Amino acid sequence: MRHIRVIGVGAGDPGLLTVEAVEALRSVEAFLVLDKGETTAELTATRQAILERFLGADGYRVVTIADPPRDRTADDYAGAVEAWRDARSMAVEHALRTEIGEKGTAGLLVWGDPALYDGTITMLDTIVARGQVPLKYDVLPGISSVQLLAARHRITLTRTAGAVRVTTGRRVAAGKHDDAEDADLVVMLDAHLACERFRGQGAELYWGAYLGTPDEVLIAGPLDEVMDHVTAKRARLRAEKGWIMDTYLVRRPTG
Amino acid sequence: MRHIRVIGVGAGDPGLLTVEAVEALRSVEAFLVLDKGETTAELTATRQAILERFLGADGYRVVTIADPPRDRTADDYAGAVEAWRDARSMAVEHALRTEIGEKGTAGLLVWGDPALYDGTITMLDTIVARGQVPLKYDVLPGISSVQLLAARHRITLTRTAGAVRVTTGRRVAAGKHDDAEDADLVVMLDAHLACERFRGQGAELYWGAYLGTPDEVLIAGPLDEVMDHVTAKRARLRAEKGWIMDTYLVRRPTG
Repeated sequence: MRHIRVIGVGAGDPGLLTVEAVEALRSVEAFLVLDKGETTAELTATRQAILERFLGADGYRVVTIADPPRDRTADDYAGAVEAWRDARSMAVEHALRTEIGEKGTAGLLVWGDPALYDGTITMLDTIVARGQVPLKYDVLPGISSVQLLAARHRITLTRTAGAVRVTTGRRVAAGKHDDAEDADLVVMLDAHLACERFRGQGAELYWGAYLGTPDEVLIAGPLDEVMDHVTAKRARLRAEKGWIMDTYLVRRPTG
Repeated sequence: MRHIRVIGVGAGDPGLLTVEAVEALRSVEAFLVLDKGETTAELTATRQAILERFLGADGYRVVTIADPPRDRTADDYAGAVEAWRDARSMAVEHALRTEIGEKGTAGLLVWGDPALYDGTITMLDTIVARGQVPLKYDVLPGISSVQLLAARHRITLTRTAGAVRVTTGRRVAAGKHDDAEDADLVVMLDAHLACERFRGQGAELYWGAYLGTPDEVLIAGPLDEVMDHVTAKRARLRAEKGWIMDTYLVRRPTG
């Protein structure tokens, strides 16, 4: 039976790996890496920096798997993600069979924490359910960009005795969190700064981009005052680098 | 100006510290530790194990501060927490003045992640606002028990394209999350397993206690089937050890 270690490596900085994640890196005979194409060249370099720091330049083997294309324009968002995950699981299964010994250990690196908006666990469950390549796996948590957002702004995500919702830009844009019970929102996967809709409500915004990398940018303040600045900054950074990774906390007054 | 490092040390296991947290431990001249009394003797031992692993048995200094008592029976929960935090900030300020050099660095260790249900940042902001002891501080995120819960159960906290609410037992018990929009709940600080109220709704429960310690316990399954088991187990463990730390994810069917 093959063993897979799902290793949360944190938001980018090698210092964010946990001690047990570093030990896990050392227990692995090869890393399976899904190659999403040239737009993620910087992420590839960041991953390489992590592996070289802890394993040395010649201390690891990477098996690159071409990531199947994903339909990001589909109306059925959940369905499109599922189809893409199925194709991806077949590709990973093939790599396991051909590149990892029958009793070998492979590593799957996950940015941030595998528990938040990541498909790796579901993908492995799919392979286990298919039963073609017997495997067991374990999961090591990592520091997500959301945690780094809070640490850098020196805030807590929860107010005293309060709650916080972790959600997506898509759900915010759809008006699903307009209710006063959703006063505290952590928003991920938001390509359009859906928090724009909370103008005029006395909200506070804590925004961060490229968290955990040398290009890290932070902006915070009353949403009504900083929204334009964040929007312009985000557009400019995205144009300059060709991609952006950002997240934010928006906090509205409670009832 | 004194420097304080707020260091998230994770859920208990020394392996959960990040590499940068380990480096931060080494940058500190003394750790300020709030002593909450004999009920937390095991937590004290766990903290000692972390410090000894990374700094050696003689490699650190701990300044113990008597934690002011907290009124846990007050009707005004938020007010009681605030009064307790004020008293605590005065005690920490006094320790800073008397135990840490004027340009010295002190460490404050936080279980889990300082961003979730922790008063350390608010306390430091209170000291900064008082202005009696000038200080600057930074925050290092840690792996929370919630992340470990997900990793151990090998689940994600978020379903595809979905949201998850992080909340307290008190809020669940008050019926604040009965709505179908709150189908996915991470519940912390719950002394009474308030998820009991979700019986008969087809919910799934993922529960964990003493996460990150050798006494870790996990139970998962349909809530209707495992609720009695979790309730009995929790009561027995709490009686045996004298204290319990637990958290859970409850997931109900969506609309």
